[in-house]
Amino acid sequence: MKAEIIAVGSEMLTPFRQDTNSLHVTEKLNALGVTVNFKTIVGDRQRDLVSAIRTALGRVDILILMGGLGPTEDDLTREAVAESLSLTLRRDAAQVAALHARAASWRIPMPENNLKQADVIAGATVLPNPNGSAPGQWLDITFGGYRKLIALLPGPPRECRPLFDAECLPRLKFIVPPRTIAVRTLKAAMIPESQADKLLAPIYTTYTDVETTLLAHTGDLQITLICSKPDADTAWKRVDELASRIEEALEDWLYSSDGDSLEQIVLYYLGLRQATLAVAESCTGGLLAQRITSVPGASRSFLGGIVVYSNEMKTQFAGVPMELIAEYGAVSAEVAKALAEGIRSRTGATVGASITGIAGPTGATDTKPVGLVHIAVCDPQGCDAVERTFRGDRRHIREWAAQLALDMIRRRLM
Amino acid sequence: MKAEIIAVGSEMLTPFRQDTNSLHVTEKLNALGVTVNFKTIVGDRQRDLVSAIRTALGRVDILILMGGLGPTEDDLTREAVAESLSLTLRRDAAQVAALHARAASWRIPMPENNLKQADVIAGATVLPNPNGSAPGQWLDITFGGYRKLIALLPGPPRECRPLFDAECLPRLKFIVPPRTIAVRTLKAAMIPESQADKLLAPIYTTYTDVETTLLAHTGDLQITLICSKPDADTAWKRVDELASRIEEALEDWLYSSDGDSLEQIVLYYLGLRQATLAVAESCTGGLLAQRITSVPGASRSFLGGIVVYSNEMKTQFAGVPMELIAEYGAVSAEVAKALAEGIRSRTGATVGASITGIAGPTGATDTKPVGLVHIAVCDPQGCDAVERTFRGDRRHIREWAAQLALDMIRRRLM
Repeated sequence: MKAEIIAVGSEMLTPFRQDTNSLHVTEKLNALGVTVNFKTIVGDRQRDLVSAIRTALGRVDILILMGGLGPTEDDLTREAVAESLSLTLRRDAAQVAALHARAASWRIPMPENNLKQADVIAGATVLPNPNGSAPGQWLDITFGGYRKLIALLPGPPRECRPLFDAECLPRLKFIVPPRTIAVRTLKAAMIPESQADKLLAPIYTTYTDVETTLLAHTGDLQITLICSKPDADTAWKRVDELASRIEEALEDWLYSSDGDSLEQIVLYYLGLRQATLAVAESCTGGLLAQRITSVPGASRSFLGGIVVYSNEMKTQFAGVPMELIAEYGAVSAEVAKALAEGIRSRTGATVGASITGIAGPTGATDTKPVGLVHIAVCDPQGCDAVERTFRGDRRHIREWAAQLALDMIRRRLM
Repeated sequence: MKAEIIAVGSEMLTPFRQDTNSLHVTEKLNALGVTVNFKTIVGDRQRDLVSAIRTALGRVDILILMGGLGPTEDDLTREAVAESLSLTLRRDAAQVAALHARAASWRIPMPENNLKQADVIAGATVLPNPNGSAPGQWLDITFGGYRKLIALLPGPPRECRPLFDAECLPRLKFIVPPRTIAVRTLKAAMIPESQADKLLAPIYTTYTDVETTLLAHTGDLQITLICSKPDADTAWKRVDELASRIEEALEDWLYSSDGDSLEQIVLYYLGLRQATLAVAESCTGGLLAQRITSVPGASRSFLGGIVVYSNEMKTQFAGVPMELIAEYGAVSAEVAKALAEGIRSRTGATVGASITGIAGPTGATDTKPVGLVHIAVCDPQGCDAVERTFRGDRRHIREWAAQLALDMIRRRLM
C-alpha cells in the first residue's frame, strides 16, 4: 500500500522550520511494509489544503495529515478534510466535555475558540490524545471507488508521534498485508566519514538485498540496515550477517549494535563497573551534563557537574590553582587535567571528565584559535588528555567537544 | 506570485534524510516577494513525478524542481517534466561536447548513460552548472493559458544552491513584479497558546494584508508578521503598526520585538544592569546553563553553574543544609531557594537561579508526581519561587523547566 504524508503549517513553508514528524511516521510505515510515495507541505490556507488533500486521495491509499488541529483560526485541517470529502463536521459532546474537564484540571478558563477542537468529521473515529487538547481523527472510507485510510494528527511532535504509534499503527497493522522487515542500527563515534565509507562500502555494497544507510552528524555515525523478505528468518539472517561484518570492520569505533545513544552506552558501562561520574565544563557550558542527564535513571551513576565559565569558579569549585591558569591559560591541557582531577576528588566520583576550549566567535588569541578544545578524563588509574581544534560555528564546536568527551569516557571505561 | 518546490529523490522519503535545499530557495524567493505555497517530496518514479508536476502546474506560477538530473536510471526529472508538458527531449550537441570535455579533464572514461545529462527539453534554456556534470534547465512557457516558470536544478546542495542563485534569481527578478516584504518576529514566554490566540486573533485578523503566524514550542511563542507591498514604506508601516498593537496586548509576556531568543534577552538585561548570573540545576541537568552559554559572549555576565544531581553535591557545592533536604525533600521550595541563594553567595553573582524537580519517568512519590518542579530566582532584593507540575516526557519536562527559569530570571531583571 502507498502512503502520503501531508504536513500542515505555514511555518514549515518559511526558511526557518522543517517538518520532522514525517521521519518518525515514515519509519513506522516502512516497518509495516508501507512505502511513503509523497510528502507534501502546505500552509494554513484552506484552499491549498483542499488541493493537497484531493491530490493525495487521487494517488495513495493511506493519507497521514499532521498539524492544523489546534484551537486557532489558522487551524483548518478538520475543515479542509471535510470539504475535500464533502462530509460535514459535528461538534462532539463527549469531546466538548473532555475539553472542559481538561481546562478545569489545569485550573484555567477555557476560551470559546477551544471548542473547535471538538469538531469531528462525519464518520470519523476520535483518537484520544493524552498529551494535548486536540484529539486525532481516523477515517476508513471509500472514495472514488477505492478504500482510503485517513489520519488527522496534531502537529506538536510530542502529541503527533505517540498518537500515531498508539492509535494509527494498530489500525494499519490490522489492514495492511503482513510482511517482515528486519532493521538494525549500528553506531560509531568520532570516525571520519570518508574513512567509514572506505571501510564499509566494499562490505555493504555486496549485500544488494539489504538497504544500508550511513548518516553522520558531529562525530556520530549511524548505520541502518534494512532487509525486507517474505520470510522473517531470511530477512534477519541477512541483516545480522552484514551487521557482524560491519562491527568487525569498525573495531572500537563501534559503540552500539542496537541503536543506543553514546550517553546511554557511557551510563551502561558506568553501571557495569559500579563507577560514578562527575564533569567540569567550560566552553560546552552544560552540554555534556545535559546529554548525560537526558537518559532516564542517569542519577544512578552521574553525581553532577560544574559549569565553570569564570576562572574564579574553576578555582573555587574544582580547586584549579590560580597560578596554573595564569601560567598556561584556562584553555590548556594542564587546566583540563586539573579540572577533571578536581571535580573527581571534590565529588568522590570514580571518573572525572573536563572540557575547556574556545567556542567562539570571539576569544581566540595568537596561539589559541577558535575551536581549540582540551579534554581530560581521569580515574584512579590515571588520565587521558586530548587536544583538538574543531571547525565550524559556536554550536558546532560545542557539539563536537561534548561528543569527543563522551567517547573518551566510553573508551576509558572499556 | 506563488511558487512550489518539488524535491526529487527516494532517499528523502526514508526516515533518514530530509530535503534542505528548499530552505535556501524559500528564503531567496521570499525576498523577491514570492511565497512558497507548497513543497512536495517525491521519489524517483516517473509516474509519481508527473503527478506531482501536473498538480503543481495547476496551482502555482513558479515551479522549482530539485534533484533527479544525474546520469543514473533513477534520474527522471527531465523525462517527467517533458511528459507533463507534452514536450520532447533532444540530445544537445554542445552539452554532449561539454560532458566529454569534463570527463577528459578528470581523466576518467565517460559511461554511455552519462549522456542523458545532455538531454534538453524543447524550448528550455540550459543553465550551466560549474559545480557538477548535470546542467540545470529553465522553461518560461504558457500552460493552460497561464505563464509558468519552471526550473530544473541538480539535487546536491553545493550544486543546487549556487545554480539557483546565479541563474534563476536574476531571471525571476526580471519577471516578478518588484515588491517589498516586511518581516518582523515578536516573541513571548510562558503564555498559554489558547490565551495568546484569544488575545491576539481579534487584532491580527483585522490586518488581512499582513500574514501572521503563531508558533508555540514549550513555553516559547513566536509571532511572525509578513507584509508584502509594492512600496516599502507601506509594507513596513503595516507590519510595525500591527507589531505595536500585539506588543501592547501581550504586556509583559512579550520579551522580544525583533526575534531575539529568551537567553539573549536575559543576557541583555544582565549586561544592562551590570549584573552577573550563576545557576544551580538538578532535574534539568545542565540544560539551563547550556542555553545561556549557547549565546556568544555569555561569559561577560554568566559566571557558571552547578549540576547537582546527588544530595551530597547540593550540600557541598551550594551549601544546602542536609537537614533541609531531609525535612522537605530535594524537590521542594525550601531546597530550591537554598540552592539559588547558595550558588549566588558562593559565586558572588548578582542573581542566583535554581531548578529542582522530578523529570521522570521514575522518581515520583505519593506526594510528588513526575513533572513537579520548583524554581527559585534570588537577587539582593529577595527571591521569587514558583512550583509547577509539567506534563509530558522527561525531555519535555526538562525543557519547560529551563524555559520557565529563564523567564523568571527575565522578569526578576525587568
